[in-house]
Order: sequence, then structure tokens, then C-alpha cells
Amino acid sequence: MDAGGRKGSEEEMEHMERTWISELPVDTPCRVCGFAETVRQMKWGAFVVLRDVTGRIQVTVDKNRLPVVTELTPHSVIEVCGRVTENPSVRLGGREIQAEELRILSQAEALPIHPDSDIEGRMDYRWIDLRREENQRMIALQTTLVGAMREFLLSRRFLEIHTPKLIAAASESGSEVFAVKYFDTTAYLAQSPQFYKQMAMAAGLERIFETGPVFRAEKSYTNKHATEFSCFDIEFSYIDSVADVMHLEEELLAYAFARVSEVHGEAVVRLFGEEHRITVPTLPFPVIRLRDLYRELEERYGYTVPDSMKGDLTTDAERLCAKFSMEKYGHEFLFVTDYDASERAFYHMRDEKGVPQGYDLIWRGVEITTGAQREHRYEILRRQAEEKGLAKDVEFYLRFFRYGCPPHGGFGLGIDRLTMLFLGLSIKETEFLFRGPNRLTP
Amino acid sequence: MDAGGRKGSEEEMEHMERTWISELPVDTPCRVCGFAETVRQMKWGAFVVLRDVTGRIQVTVDKNRLPVVTELTPHSVIEVCGRVTENPSVRLGGREIQAEELRILSQAEALPIHPDSDIEGRMDYRWIDLRREENQRMIALQTTLVGAMREFLLSRRFLEIHTPKLIAAASESGSEVFAVKYFDTTAYLAQSPQFYKQMAMAAGLERIFETGPVFRAEKSYTNKHATEFSCFDIEFSYIDSVADVMHLEEELLAYAFARVSEVHGEAVVRLFGEEHRITVPTLPFPVIRLRDLYRELEERYGYTVPDSMKGDLTTDAERLCAKFSMEKYGHEFLFVTDYDASERAFYHMRDEKGVPQGYDLIWRGVEITTGAQREHRYEILRRQAEEKGLAKDVEFYLRFFRYGCPPHGGFGLGIDRLTMLFLGLSIKETEFLFRGPNRLTP
Repeated sequence: MDAGGRKGSEEEMEHMERTWISELPVDTPCRVCGFAETVRQMKWGAFVVLRDVTGRIQVTVDKNRLPVVTELTPHSVIEVCGRVTENPSVRLGGREIQAEELRILSQAEALPIHPDSDIEGRMDYRWIDLRREENQRMIALQTTLVGAMREFLLSRRFLEIHTPKLIAAASESGSEVFAVKYFDTTAYLAQSPQFYKQMAMAAGLERIFETGPVFRAEKSYTNKHATEFSCFDIEFSYIDSVADVMHLEEELLAYAFARVSEVHGEAVVRLFGEEHRITVPTLPFPVIRLRDLYRELEERYGYTVPDSMKGDLTTDAERLCAKFSMEKYGHEFLFVTDYDASERAFYHMRDEKGVPQGYDLIWRGVEITTGAQREHRYEILRRQAEEKGLAKDVEFYLRFFRYGCPPHGGFGLGIDRLTMLFLGLSIKETEFLFRGPNRLTP
Repeated sequence: MDAGGRKGSEEEMEHMERTWISELPVDTPCRVCGFAETVRQMKWGAFVVLRDVTGRIQVTVDKNRLPVVTELTPHSVIEVCGRVTENPSVRLGGREIQAEELRILSQAEALPIHPDSDIEGRMDYRWIDLRREENQRMIALQTTLVGAMREFLLSRRFLEIHTPKLIAAASESGSEVFAVKYFDTTAYLAQSPQFYKQMAMAAGLERIFETGPVFRAEKSYTNKHATEFSCFDIEFSYIDSVADVMHLEEELLAYAFARVSEVHGEAVVRLFGEEHRITVPTLPFPVIRLRDLYRELEERYGYTVPDSMKGDLTTDAERLCAKFSMEKYGHEFLFVTDYDASERAFYHMRDEKGVPQGYDLIWRGVEITTGAQREHRYEILRRQAEEKGLAKDVEFYLRFFRYGCPPHGGFGLGIDRLTMLFLGLSIKETEFLFRGPNRLTP
């Protein structure tokens, strides 16, 4: 069949297997495909830098032999047959392909943006922006990260579930939820799979994870917030305390970071700078109680938390954690525990003194997880929901705990947020397609 | 910390590691946790069938020693310490645990449903329904299936993307889309990641997959339709024809089915019956053109397709494919190609005769995939969109093809639908939580 828009000698090319640029053998006939990242037209023909998902190579094209090259525009997609030769004068790896055949598979118009365009312009043409090597690496890093986390969990008998995003009740906090016209009624978009991953515990699935979108109707314009993002959620049963949850999380992250470092470590330093060198965290991660953290931040950096905010971690304190944790523990991560019950979700288990059995995990000065042991005892859970004035809203959820439910806990990790912190980017630059209050396209 | 609701001798139990029931050693002290699936109270104590995610075992509890057992209700969650002994008179595997300690972790109320309750009743209490061994197996099978597909793709350099579900335009077919109040405007829920996975091709990511929810505002009450379900989507570049797409799909399925068969084959036959024995498909899958299929169905089974429906596969013909494919090819799968362009999406590439370069894949008489080579040439794509009166709606999408885009193709697989066909269930019984026009809870 006609694969479209092709110019050149078709038959020969179709019969040769495509080779990745990173795996090109020298002095053997080969076929490569990719974007013509740059095209330098010369009197005798053109120098083309060809790029595929594995790398770049210079292609030298003689226009007497392949006149189609005079029509070639930058970012067009081409197919080239030829031989790789070593040529020390070529700056790009000291090798080039002498083109014997060339087909333009897709001719590009002049690009509407360039790498230095402002972020909104680049987001309008996100598919062009994503061609940058940094962004290709970012997607690859995220693939490795998520893949390694799944692998770790599957090897420990975790099951994967897919919870619904369309829900009947506005869930935890009614304010920040999107409403959906659902036939003759209204549905809402889930802000997290929290209630349903706990339902999986009541269902006896014991250990589950999920990756999926979550939705927040927040009019927030920070570097960290989006109205839709991807979460990696974990919940598991028969824990003895929240320490089991923290331990699983640190093991999971250490495993995934080791893999990311192995596959992408060098490239990340080359593309994003030495300050983004990936450190594989050592175990255990340091742990500090919130009140002790505030005392330390005051003593070390003169930071005083306002009295009204003592029960929660302020954004300023969160940021200072990066410095503090490196100085005191030589570690990028920091578990902060013993928040005030008034600041935590009603479903966090509390100890006999009323202290929530949960934590935040801070990495590089940003909260990446909230985790906890959950309250699985129906009567206590109901009371805690009532205290927060939520008992009616979460009636359907409370029912999960009436017919037997194991003790359990879990946490969620923002996938885009983690990627963002690996590379020092904003959330807009990290999501495949960012969604914010003013951004629904492309 | 207090893990809650515990009765019994706490300290000893906390220090022993939990053992999975499937891995219990004989005559060694152990600690097991799970649901008390059945509780038979006797004069001297009770027989309990304890169930965890790996299996079941009988626990014998002496009430003089552990009086708490008299309070134990079925489906309560318990923790038991004791020794496994072999006892040929025990029907459940010829072994039992003599309980030395027992803690009730969560006391169950009388269950509101039982395994024979009607489907709506069971869905109201889905977390209880999911405790059935068949359903536990179903979730495990789906985990293996999806995990194996990802593994196959990752080993071939596919990247994972997370496309937005909130979109600005009502996409392909305006009729069946959910509207979301999005601040001062309206957003829609994506019916598929189709446009965005193609955007990833224009972004030079070359090979991508995604697992995520898709949404269909269809008032459909069949066994196969839901308003929200999970899709596994694949798209890849530099294909020569649709045959490359079909080949990848058959390889992917053969790989994943082999894994599913290995891990779950025996259990599926035991729980769901011999007719659901998993067959690992051989390669290549049989392929037939739609008009040839209709001719065969007429000759073999006297099925005549109405003239007005000749360009598409009718539901009756789809069902007959199961029988036909087994009879003619000895194969459960069947690729059907050469649909009429009027019946296929505008973005399917067409050959010089106007025939769409796409296919449906039928398994056990149900369509599980639509796949195609996509039209990547802007002018032709725009013309095809105009023909269907969609050019304005898909303006944002057409733009992806103006600045260079490789030839590409792909397909999507409904994860729940595949699972449903493996086990002979309805979609309601397959989804973790089904969503339909009348079903938004729990």
C-alpha cells in the first residue's frame, strides 16, 4: 500500500529494515527514519541532521543524485538509505551517512515556535515543543520511573485496579471538584482514588496500585498545580503501623530511583545540569516530627512558624526542608510526621493522644506524598467524619467498613510532580499536555 | 501504635511475620491474617475458614483458650497465631491451624448480600461481591494481562504517556460526550486518547502506549457497554502499512495470553469452566476482507447481510465470526479488513481505491480492537475530515500534521472487555466498579 507523500525510489527502501540511529553499523547499507532537525542547503546539496528517538546523525545529500533535497524543509520527516562512514571532521559523533536514497515522508511548514519561545507559545504547539531532546528525555525518564514502580509492586503481589473517575458524591472536599452533566443527574470527577483504593482493601484484594488521572478544580496558578494530573496510588492491608507504609514507600522510591539513575543519570546531567544529578536515596529515610522540625528550622535558619499554622507544614518550611535534610541527615528526602488532626483528612488513624498516624514526604523542598495508616474501625471512622462535618457526604464510603475490613494504609505520588523535581521544571513543562484554569488546548 | 480494634494477646503477635496461606509450613509457629470466610460455632469452640489473597485454610479455635471466638461473625477480619498440622479428615487441603492466639481486627455485621444475589444488589455492595474467589481471580488476571502488555512494549522501546481527559472540543463524535463545567467555560471528557496519541507521533516520540479511562455518554444497556472503562492504547511510527499494525497487535496478544495462561490457566478452568480454557493464539492471526467474510457467512450459515449494512460488520456477523474462524482457520481470532470508508473514522488512511487501511479484530465473536494506519498527510487528512463535516471540530487536531509527522498507526484495546471475554462475564461483572446510565455508585 501507499504509505503516503513519498518521493524517491520506493521499492528498494521498503525492503530494508529500519535501523535506530544509535545502532547504526559502519560501512553497511542501512535505512534510517526521522525528523530533519536542521537542513543546511549548499550549492552541491545539503547537510541534514537527522534525529530519531535514539539519537542524531549527519546526512550528506548530493542534489544531483537526489534533487528532492532542495525541497526539504527543517522538521520534515524523511527516510534515508545509505552507508555510514567515519569522518572525523563531522562534529556530530564523527560519522555521517552518504545518502543514496531520500524520501520526504511529511513536509513541514515553517515552524510557528522555537525553543526560546515563551511557555504559553510553546504549549500552544506542544507537539513541536516535545521534540526537544530535553522533553524526549523527560518522557523517557517518566516511563522508566513508573515502569520500575510497577515492577517493584508486582513482584510483591500487588494487584492493579482501575477505579472510576465519575463519582456520585463530591467526595472529600466539595469545593474543588468538577461537575459533569450525567444524563439527568450530576456526576463529579474524582479528586483522588482514595475512597476506592480503600474499598479494594474491604474487598480483600490486600495490596493494590493504580496509575490514573486525578482532577482538581482549583484556580491555582503556581508552578506546581494543574487541574488534571497523573497519580500513582498504593494501598495495602495488614500493616502494624504507619511505619510499614513509610517503609514500603522508601523501598519503592529507592528501587525506582536506582533504575532511573542507571538509565538516564548521565543524560540528565548533560541536558539539565550537574545540579540535577540523580542521587539514589539510602535507607531508611530520615523522619522528624513536625514540632521538632519547626524547632530545628528556628534554631538553624531563624524561621518562626506563625502560631496559627503550627499544626501543618507551611510552604516556607517545606522549602527549607531541602536544606535542613541535607545538612542534618545528608539526605534529599524527609518524612515529616505528627501533624495536627485538624489539618489531616478524617480517615487518617489517630493514636490514643489524637495524633494522626500519617506523614508527608518532602523531596527537594516539595511535598511529594501524603501517606497514612487509615482508620478501618467503622465507629471511630464515622466519629472522625462527623467531627469534620462530612458524615453525610461520605456515607457511601463509611459503609465499606461495616462488613469486615483489614487494617491498612497507603499513599499517593504525583507522577508529574516527581518528574518535575527530577529535572527542575515547572508542572507546565512536565505534563504531556498541561491543564490549568486557562488552558484546555491543544 | 495501636492498629485498632484488637482483642487478644497483642505483643506476641506483633513480633511474628505474617505468612501467606499458600506458603504455610507444617509444624512451625506462624501468623496468618485474612477474612473469616465461614465460622461454624461448636460447643467446644469454632471451625473457621480463613481466607487471604493466596488461599484458604481451616482454623480450629478452642473457646476455653480463646473465648473471643464466640463473638466472631462471618467475614470479620482476623489474625491468628498457631501451628499448621496435617489432618486428612479436613476437606480443605487436609491441613488445619490449631489457633493459639486470635485477634478480631474488624468485626463484620451480617452481610447484606450473598453470592446469589442479583447483579444490581451485588453492585450496590461491590466490595463484598469482589471477595468471591472468581472476582479475586479476575482482578489478578487483568493485572497479569496489562502487566505483560506493558512489558512487551517497554522491551520494544515504547514510551508511556498520560494524555489529558479534559478536552476543549467534543472530539470525534459530538453526540456521546460528557460535558464538564470548567470554570467559566465547558470542557468535555475524552472518548479516547486517539488525537493525543497521534500528537505524540508528531512530537517524535515514535512509539507510545497509554492505559487510562475513556468516557462514553451512551444510553446503552447492553452487556458490553459502560459509560467509563479502561483502555490500552498504542500508536507507533514509521510503519510501511497497516499490516505492521496488525502484526504488532498479534504479537502483543500472543505474548500477553501466554503469560495469562501460564499464571491463571488452571484456576480459570476450575472457577469458570472448561469452555473458558485459555488458548495461546498462534501467529499469524487469520485475516479476511469484509466482503469475503459476508460471502462465507452466507455460504456456511445462510446469513445474509442487509444491503444497507454491507460496508460495516453487523452485530450478528460479529457473533458468527467466532464459529467461522474456528471452523475455517482453527483460530479464536479474526482480523476483518476493507470496511467501507463511510463507516470508518476520517483519520484512517485510504488506499488509491478509497479503501480504509484499518481493521477490526474479533475474538470469541466480539470486536476487541479497531486499528489502522492513520492518514498523516495534512491535505488529505483535512479533505477526509471535511467529507465527514468535521473539519471545524477537529481544527486543533489537523494542526498536528502541518509541521512534520511520521507515517504511523495504532490501535486500542478495551481492558475490561478483554477480561470479560476471558471469563465469560458481562461488563458489569468485570469492571472494578461499573458505571452506566443508571449506575454511579458506590
